[in-house]
Amino acid sequence: MAEKITLAHGSGGKASHELIEGLFVAVFGSRSPGVLEDSAVLEAGREKIAFSTDSFVVDPIFFPGGDIGSLAVHGTVNDLAMRGAEPLYISVGMIIEEGFACRDLEIIVRSLKKGADAAGVEIVAGDTKVVPAGKADRIFINTTGIGLLRPGCDISAAHGRPGDAVILSGTMADHGATILCQREGLQIEGGFRSDSAPLNHMVAAMIREAGDAVHVLRDPTRGGVGTTLNELASASGVGIRIRETALPVRQDVRGACDLLGLDPLYLANEGKLLAFVEPGAAGRVLAVMRKVKHGENACIIGELVADNPGQVILQTAIGSSRIVDMLHGEPLPRIC
Amino acid sequence: MAEKITLAHGSGGKASHELIEGLFVAVFGSRSPGVLEDSAVLEAGREKIAFSTDSFVVDPIFFPGGDIGSLAVHGTVNDLAMRGAEPLYISVGMIIEEGFACRDLEIIVRSLKKGADAAGVEIVAGDTKVVPAGKADRIFINTTGIGLLRPGCDISAAHGRPGDAVILSGTMADHGATILCQREGLQIEGGFRSDSAPLNHMVAAMIREAGDAVHVLRDPTRGGVGTTLNELASASGVGIRIRETALPVRQDVRGACDLLGLDPLYLANEGKLLAFVEPGAAGRVLAVMRKVKHGENACIIGELVADNPGQVILQTAIGSSRIVDMLHGEPLPRIC
Repeated sequence: MAEKITLAHGSGGKASHELIEGLFVAVFGSRSPGVLEDSAVLEAGREKIAFSTDSFVVDPIFFPGGDIGSLAVHGTVNDLAMRGAEPLYISVGMIIEEGFACRDLEIIVRSLKKGADAAGVEIVAGDTKVVPAGKADRIFINTTGIGLLRPGCDISAAHGRPGDAVILSGTMADHGATILCQREGLQIEGGFRSDSAPLNHMVAAMIREAGDAVHVLRDPTRGGVGTTLNELASASGVGIRIRETALPVRQDVRGACDLLGLDPLYLANEGKLLAFVEPGAAGRVLAVMRKVKHGENACIIGELVADNPGQVILQTAIGSSRIVDMLHGEPLPRIC
Repeated sequence: MAEKITLAHGSGGKASHELIEGLFVAVFGSRSPGVLEDSAVLEAGREKIAFSTDSFVVDPIFFPGGDIGSLAVHGTVNDLAMRGAEPLYISVGMIIEEGFACRDLEIIVRSLKKGADAAGVEIVAGDTKVVPAGKADRIFINTTGIGLLRPGCDISAAHGRPGDAVILSGTMADHGATILCQREGLQIEGGFRSDSAPLNHMVAAMIREAGDAVHVLRDPTRGGVGTTLNELASASGVGIRIRETALPVRQDVRGACDLLGLDPLYLANEGKLLAFVEPGAAGRVLAVMRKVKHGENACIIGELVADNPGQVILQTAIGSSRIVDMLHGEPLPRIC
């Protein structure tokens, strides 16, 4: 292990994985060895529940398309939904810097509530700590959620099979590009904004339509689609082939990424999901996704293959191929 | 509401309550209006579960008797136990400052694990964020827990009845005095240390012995026994009479408090509980508590009365009486 914690340890990329595998999993153990899920599936008496935690340290705390409050609700709701669970309850733990404006806190609290209402979850527990000025950066929020598993539902990062279609629910990099432009003081051309949104209603519709033909669900947040696909390829022991021409990126987001020298494949999304779906059901699932909110631009971006397990291969626009590796460093600290 | 957040808003005292009632409860709503519980009791399908969240920002992060890791586990385990639930699962969300020593992180992670093992809970979910140097103070930890409610168990801050005995499970102020001495660089005389400990096994023994004769359980953390008793008096709509001569305080802790000009009644405890128990069962419950770990010094410190609902009255050693008010300011920021 490194001597000191670096920003890369919080990036969601390789250094994060080394920390998680080398320390947290080594000490805490793991319920699904070798597979990191968005939420844990647990027995609570006669019921199966999903349980997920996430801390939010996004900078800036207010940005086009949302704020740290809406982001905190969506993040945890989505992590629960990615196991096929119905999100029910959420807790909110705030760490606030002394001197933080109460009117900003109120905006954030209302945003948490609005986000929870839209997702259909209830905020049932909270905690507030205040630290002296200079000991935190305005506000950090932890949300932890409980969902109820749909009977028979068994969605896991490990369940992808060769042949499965890879579906992405919409355009890439909107959140990451928005935060970065905001932070750098760049005028956003074209008016793109964070895609932060709850995905549980979309997931419910997908499962209603196709049941256990939906093998894998994952929201490509920190590290973006590129890193997430690498995680899923490893967890499922499959190769993934994606087509560059099929990857949906808004023109203005692509322009911002070019300007900043960043690849949209590695920028965070906060209202998108990746799904691995049986080929025979993929068309129906896609049709359903396109009909629900936040899924209008869903598309098939590739498929799972038996070759090169653990690897993600991009077929470029000009017909060549390259390996899409996991994110290495940290291009964008405090993206969520 | 105030214009800016102050340290007092995180104290657990009056300003905290104003923030919680005036903003959080006003916006989020409340499942038990007027009563703030240590954890929420929720339906999850056919089961009833308890759910509680707590963020830990203690300074220093290592102290006699524990560290931020053990404290974070005990805090949430105890909040679940205070509803009569059996703690099962815990999540750990860390916010780490860039540059934090990995060997300190490893000590804390092992401490989390050791604490969880002692309490019999499993750490099942985690999240790690890293913020740039200077944007947080070393490490903050959120723990959120799920417990399974014992069938028929209905323990609530609102269930105290006139006549109930008020039991305290051991000496007051050990945690608060330890943290303060450590922070101020005071040599601790007599070797007292934080009482940070899991209380779920004690609660299980109490409920096994006396069932629903145990009306109220609460761990007097931030704000200490004085503030907690005020909360419980309000929630139950009863008066509370306590006897100064019955309040257990270690001699060396009392000495440290005198030196620092602080009242042990308002200093935090992290391994103690207050119980309101039917008078006929109080003796048996006390006997059981004294036999289990962390309960050796349990004692009856007073009783609930119908007079002066919402008020806590202290009968002093010299026979006079005074009102014990809720903590006002913040004598000790970052105590947990």
